[in-house]
This record gives sequence, structure tokens and C-alpha cells, in this order.
Amino acid sequence: MPSADSFDLLKTSARAPHDVHKDDTKRETRRLGQELVGLQNRLYAENKRSVLVVLQGMDASGKDGLIRTVFSGLNPQGVRVQSFKEPTDEELAHDFLWRVHQHTPRHGMIQVFNRSHYEDVLVTRVLGLVNAEEARRRFTAINAFEKLLQQAGTTVLKFYLHVSEKEQRERLQERVEDPSKQWKYSAEDAGKANQWPEYRAVYEDVFQHCSPQSCPWQVVPADQNWYKAHLVTRALRDALVALDPQFPATKLDRPR
Amino acid sequence: MPSADSFDLLKTSARAPHDVHKDDTKRETRRLGQELVGLQNRLYAENKRSVLVVLQGMDASGKDGLIRTVFSGLNPQGVRVQSFKEPTDEELAHDFLWRVHQHTPRHGMIQVFNRSHYEDVLVTRVLGLVNAEEARRRFTAINAFEKLLQQAGTTVLKFYLHVSEKEQRERLQERVEDPSKQWKYSAEDAGKANQWPEYRAVYEDVFQHCSPQSCPWQVVPADQNWYKAHLVTRALRDALVALDPQFPATKLDRPR
Repeated sequence: MPSADSFDLLKTSARAPHDVHKDDTKRETRRLGQELVGLQNRLYAENKRSVLVVLQGMDASGKDGLIRTVFSGLNPQGVRVQSFKEPTDEELAHDFLWRVHQHTPRHGMIQVFNRSHYEDVLVTRVLGLVNAEEARRRFTAINAFEKLLQQAGTTVLKFYLHVSEKEQRERLQERVEDPSKQWKYSAEDAGKANQWPEYRAVYEDVFQHCSPQSCPWQVVPADQNWYKAHLVTRALRDALVALDPQFPATKLDRPR
Repeated sequence: MPSADSFDLLKTSARAPHDVHKDDTKRETRRLGQELVGLQNRLYAENKRSVLVVLQGMDASGKDGLIRTVFSGLNPQGVRVQSFKEPTDEELAHDFLWRVHQHTPRHGMIQVFNRSHYEDVLVTRVLGLVNAEEARRRFTAINAFEKLLQQAGTTVLKFYLHVSEKEQRERLQERVEDPSKQWKYSAEDAGKANQWPEYRAVYEDVFQHCSPQSCPWQVVPADQNWYKAHLVTRALRDALVALDPQFPATKLDRPR
């Protein structure tokens, strides 16, 4: 999966490479998912480290579906998903990291952010609420915040679900036509669909300023759901393998 | 009031200068307190900025008494006091700023921290739970955190109540002997009283690393309660005068 410190989304494919076979990949995703169950179990039991999965992507990039696919097999006691919508008045009356900090994972947990603190340097910029100078200040604050989490034992994984302009337009159109998807459609969607270039620009700015080597953005080609699910599952599994969480010693094992 | 970027507490008097008269000062404190009421009223009504007062000091430096004296005349709807005690298991399972971030002031409010995130680079170091290297990392995180708050419109005032070793010993002794103060006495107090030099050293380290020009520590001579109350009241009043909060325009005043 490409990392994203200086990135040109227009030149980045939103599809799997041609030599990647769908059926093989789905089989491999299932295998990795089973491995994840055991790893999560150990992370939870160890109760010393945690994982934060930050999911960003334009509308209709498939965040909800991805969460269902990747995380539904895990022990729900050890997973929490928090969606960040338009901020409330109470949230706006604090600094922009206040509301997300309350939902960072405690030891043992995997926390998923469906949208995140990055909205405050993305949609806000497209809407003209935050200028470039304020965005720079926020990038600095975000980098310090993520470092704080890492130093407290949280592995931070940031995924950008990269949907192409064409695929996004088709999916939004589906929301209008498919009765099972109409509830997702909002009047704003139509407007946003026309703002793909604006969103692309602010995302690229984020990738440039908020991808330190210790906490890089990962760009996930997202036009095909099976490929996206595979990449995120594998990245999560790799991160947990690197953590190598251990069951704590039972009291009997401990030196007296 | 001396600021504290590089500070030698041993050479710093914990008492008022000789030319400061107690009765005049108390009268002036009352006047400033009345001014504060009006300023707070405007801060609350304006609902755009906020103030965070961080109080630190060794045991028996008089934090509780100071809070009573300085803040009890204000509109309680616009003031909150949060004490930070030994962290819970839940708090320890997150980064060290997690628990304090939840209590930062929203717009319009004055928030008082009775002890604070600084405990995590003070008592923890004296107890040997945090080494110098980890303390450096935390200093960096603290500076970024306070900057975040400032950028969101929070004025951060940090006061160190500087009690002398001699005065501290006398006050702790009083806690043992005075029935109205015994509830404050804990078995740990006796031990801590003997650790004045150790606390002095870690406080000086904090002053050196966490006093950027935009957010300096203020050292408050604290052996005399009347002088301490005066200095903190005046600093708070000066901060609010600088903010110059305004009543919002009524709907009638607004252009239509």
C-alpha cells in the first residue's frame, strides 16, 4: 500500500493492480481476519497497548462498509467505533481536538474513528471556514496529538480510502436510485460530488503535513470493496503482529 | 510577580516584600475582586473565549484556601473547579493529557485546575515513576497542548504557589494538631514534607521547559495567604482586562 507523504491523488489508481486476483485475495483476507481474532484477543488480555484506526475518505468512499467487513468478526468488547459528524455547539466551544481525545482507546482496545480530527482540516477548508494559515497551526497540533497517543502506547493507523471521481459519482447516483441506499443520500451529497477537486487538494495538503515517518497516512485504493477490505485487514494484522501482545502471566506464574 | 523561565526557588522569597502593607493590599484585593465580577459577567455573556487557571504547589501551599478566596465571589455558573487526584486505572490506561483535556473550559468559562497535568511531571518524578527522558517528552506534549488551548481562545494562567520549606513544615504540623484541619492530613504528608528539595528540583525543571513566553509560569510567594490571594486576583483581573470581553449585540442592534 503506498504511503502518502507527498502525494498526487490524480496519478494514483483507485483500483487494484491488474495482477491481483479477486478470489485469491478474498480468501487471503478471510485468513488474515482469522489471525486478527487471535491477535486482538491477546491485545485485550495484555491490557497495555491499544490501536487507533483513523478512517477518512470522501463521501461514498465506503467507510461504513469497510468497518462492517473488517471489524465485525472481532470481539466487540475490544472494539469501539466512533463516528464524528458535524460538531455540536458544545464541541465548537472547545479546541478542535477536545471531542476526539475523549474517544481515544484505553489499553487493550481497538478504536475506529469513522471520520476524525482530520475533518477540521478538510471539510472546513473546502467550506472556507479554515484558511491555510489556521490549517498549518492545526497540522502542528495534530502531529503533537498523535505523538502523544503513540507515546502512551497507542498504535495509530491512518487510512485514506481513495475513491475515484467517476466511481464516487456512480455511487452517489445509486443512493438516489436504490431504495435500500436512499437513507444515506443527503441534499449535500450532490454538491459535494462536484467538489472532488477541492477535496483532493486539501487531502493532499494533509498528506504532506501530517505524515511523519512514525505515523504515515496510507492511501487505500477504494473503488473495489474487496481490495480495500484486504489492504486494511492486512495493515491491521501487520500492526498487531509488530506489537506482539502477550497474555499476562497468571498469578501462579509470577515470582512470589 | 516574577515569571519563571529559569528559576531558583531557594533564592526566591516566599513572602511579600517589606514595603507591601497588609491592610492596604487586602483592601486593593477586594476592589480587584469586585472588578472581576463584572469582567467575568462579560466573558460569560460573550461566550467566545475562556480562561484556564492552573494551580500547582507543594502540599500545604494553600491551593484550596486560595480557590475559596479568589473565586467564591464570582458567578458560579461561569466557574468550574476540577481537582486532579491520583489517577484512576481508567485514566492510567490513556495518555496523561486525556483526563485533563475533558475538563478544559468551554467558551465563556473560567476553569480552575487544582493540581493538573503537571502532576505527571512532578510527583511522578519524585516517586521515580517517570525518568528525565520521559519528562522531556511530556514537556513537549504539554507545550503543544497548551498552545492548542490558546489557539482555541483559552487564556492559560499557570500559578506556582511557592511555600517555603519552613512554612510548609509548620502547616503540616498544624494539620496534626488542629481538629478542624486533621481531615486534610494523610500519612503521606509526613514523608512528602521531607521531600521539599526533591520537589523543588522537579518544579525548577518544569519552569525551565514549560514556560514559553506565550504561556509562562508565575511564581506566587505563598507563605502569607493575603499576599498570595492578592497576586492571583490581580493576575486574573489583568488577564480579563486584556481579553476585554464584550456583551454580544442584541438582535435589535444587529444589521438586518
